[in-house]
Amino acid sequence: MSDKTFSARVTVRLKNGVLDPQGKAIEGALGSLGFGGVGSVRQGKVFDIELQADSKKTAQSELEAMCEKLLANTVIEDYAVEIG
Amino acid sequence: MSDKTFSARVTVRLKNGVLDPQGKAIEGALGSLGFGGVGSVRQGKVFDIELQADSKKTAQSELEAMCEKLLANTVIEDYAVEIG
Repeated sequence: MSDKTFSARVTVRLKNGVLDPQGKAIEGALGSLGFGGVGSVRQGKVFDIELQADSKKTAQSELEAMCEKLLANTVIEDYAVEIG
Repeated sequence: MSDKTFSARVTVRLKNGVLDPQGKAIEGALGSLGFGGVGSVRQGKVFDIELQADSKKTAQSELEAMCEKLLANTVIEDYAVEIG
């Protein structure tokens, strides 16, 4: 059943409109360091996951379940799953 | 000089071989939640940056300088810059 190994990348980012104080702090720090052209910075998380599943479709749905249950707070965050 | 706006994504990840306790904790938590097929998990950071620069090449080199100076700890982390 679990015969193939998939390498997946899950990206979790704050939804648009949700305040990102960490991003704002980085924006300010980059400005202080002399990077004048920086408009906005938003910070998110990335997870590189090795997963065994019987098909890419199973892997995809399992990864989405992981996001819903643990990796993302879906009230304020969006996630994207890419299987390479 | 600073006429075009670029949307860039910077991904910062721990180098291979560097211990990732946060990734290990997520690995354990996913196991406890019943996700049996999870092999390894590594966690990293992603920055979505809006940047004004006169060319894509300038934007690229500016983003790399930001990584070297602030966004990544190059002793233990690798970074990748994508300009969309």
